[in-house]
Amino acid sequence: MGSETTLQDTGEFPLIDRLTAGLADDDRVLVGPGDDAALLAAPGGSVVVTCDVLIEGQHFRRDWSTAIDIGRKAAAASLADVAAMGATATGLVVGFAGPPDLPTAWAVECTAGLREEAATVGAALIGGDVVQAPQIVLSITALGDLGGRAPVLRSGARPGDIVAVAGRLGWSAAGLALLSRGFRSPKVLVDAHRFPEPPYSAGPAAADAGATSMIDVSDGLVADARHLAEASGVVLRMVTDGWEVPEQMQAAAAAYNTDALEWMLTGGEDHALLATFPAGSALPEGFREIGSVEAGQPAVVVDDVVREADGGFRHFA
Amino acid sequence: MGSETTLQDTGEFPLIDRLTAGLADDDRVLVGPGDDAALLAAPGGSVVVTCDVLIEGQHFRRDWSTAIDIGRKAAAASLADVAAMGATATGLVVGFAGPPDLPTAWAVECTAGLREEAATVGAALIGGDVVQAPQIVLSITALGDLGGRAPVLRSGARPGDIVAVAGRLGWSAAGLALLSRGFRSPKVLVDAHRFPEPPYSAGPAAADAGATSMIDVSDGLVADARHLAEASGVVLRMVTDGWEVPEQMQAAAAAYNTDALEWMLTGGEDHALLATFPAGSALPEGFREIGSVEAGQPAVVVDDVVREADGGFRHFA
Repeated sequence: MGSETTLQDTGEFPLIDRLTAGLADDDRVLVGPGDDAALLAAPGGSVVVTCDVLIEGQHFRRDWSTAIDIGRKAAAASLADVAAMGATATGLVVGFAGPPDLPTAWAVECTAGLREEAATVGAALIGGDVVQAPQIVLSITALGDLGGRAPVLRSGARPGDIVAVAGRLGWSAAGLALLSRGFRSPKVLVDAHRFPEPPYSAGPAAADAGATSMIDVSDGLVADARHLAEASGVVLRMVTDGWEVPEQMQAAAAAYNTDALEWMLTGGEDHALLATFPAGSALPEGFREIGSVEAGQPAVVVDDVVREADGGFRHFA
Repeated sequence: MGSETTLQDTGEFPLIDRLTAGLADDDRVLVGPGDDAALLAAPGGSVVVTCDVLIEGQHFRRDWSTAIDIGRKAAAASLADVAAMGATATGLVVGFAGPPDLPTAWAVECTAGLREEAATVGAALIGGDVVQAPQIVLSITALGDLGGRAPVLRSGARPGDIVAVAGRLGWSAAGLALLSRGFRSPKVLVDAHRFPEPPYSAGPAAADAGATSMIDVSDGLVADARHLAEASGVVLRMVTDGWEVPEQMQAAAAAYNTDALEWMLTGGEDHALLATFPAGSALPEGFREIGSVEAGQPAVVVDDVVREADGGFRHFA
């Protein structure tokens, strides 16, 4: 309409005021937005930190997702990385870039999405930066606290361990397939692509249950299993027999002449947690056993087939 | 020549390996790059965190600065924010985006610049993300430790305090004026625009000396003084009498019929530290007295003139 208020109309400092308005009080946020830097409590004497950058056109499209959804998705990517260390996220720092003609409401809603997603794990928006760029860029740094736990690395899987996963597999890929073909339903799959629902609490729970290794499934189960196999120097053998394929995914796959199982094995962005546990472990709530760790040259074997191509997303590919 | 190796040739994961290769051992980096997240010691039980986003074309130009310079400049912006809290930077997390045809060497050199600048304060590169974008985006999150000090905020200046500054003023603006007109000398000014030399150690020193407030001068002395005046609810009165104007800046200003003092008052990106100290304080090394704090409606007064327009850079303006 041309009458919508844009970033250019609002200006840098009023925009920052709007994006940081009404931040909830949080005992851990010792200094919040508005100073040169924020100050966050790190009661355990260490801080988990991870960063994800999302670029408009590469990682999201404004015509497929609302600003709130994009904010939630951006936050989820980093928050899931914190969970994959066995930690609980405590704070988010957000670099936001956008064009001058971006509606201010878009930036405000995207930030609301970031804050909503952070709030699901009890984390707060503690600071950031706002600059101008030709397209929207979201750079999300999440910080977390281990609460006295040792970090769960990718490198600790040992032969004999159980392989287990928590959270959704393939839902986002199925949703993307639908959206790419112009469909907006089934809603549950399309929504799963718009923003994931990572099993955040399963991360610290896995650490408490003695997980030997863990990784956030952002690129796809096989691709991330390979990262874990390589870091640990082991073979991850998985068996898909008995995997529950959601009915709506089954139907969508049939309609497109696709194998739903491939979505589950190679689809990214659901942010499931893949972990290994010592044999005989009682798996924590949310985890299901999907295989075992073996000695050997690092590889991922699914139903007795070594997976060479993994379908994981590659930048610059 | 078309034969230079690009990000597209190198690919995401080999690129990450190159950018993180040879990171120095650091006792504070408990988990470095390569896992879902990094883990950094926070011995004081809290962590200072700040983020700056730099966009090619907005914040830097590849034809004016080398990749190393741009890396140093990007790191400096965040490291100076940490210093302005009275803290010492401990780690950098870097979101790097670039086009597929960007020479891999550029990304490697830029990261070397980030690491070099971080090393000047003893901080380490601890993690990051690498993605594709139409132009280069650098999102730098710096973390720091207060070493038991209380954070020095923008809001603590009180009437009667001394106003003091550490570090360069106007050098970067003078260098930018030269570059904009096609000149590459005087080198000292042009280099000051290519990358700043913030007085990092003056930050913790100011905190130790009892500084009541502090801010990183990134937008310009008057603009940032106003931020401090507003946060503290005071008037900052400055007197330029006796300010040392570097000879080469004097000459450049004369050549362009410009007042060098205006560069010093309104030029950004030198990352000086502006601080206030209780009356009678012995100023720590590196600080020079430039004025005093008075009661009144927040304002900045320079040589008895209230500065309304501040010349500070505004995104979306």
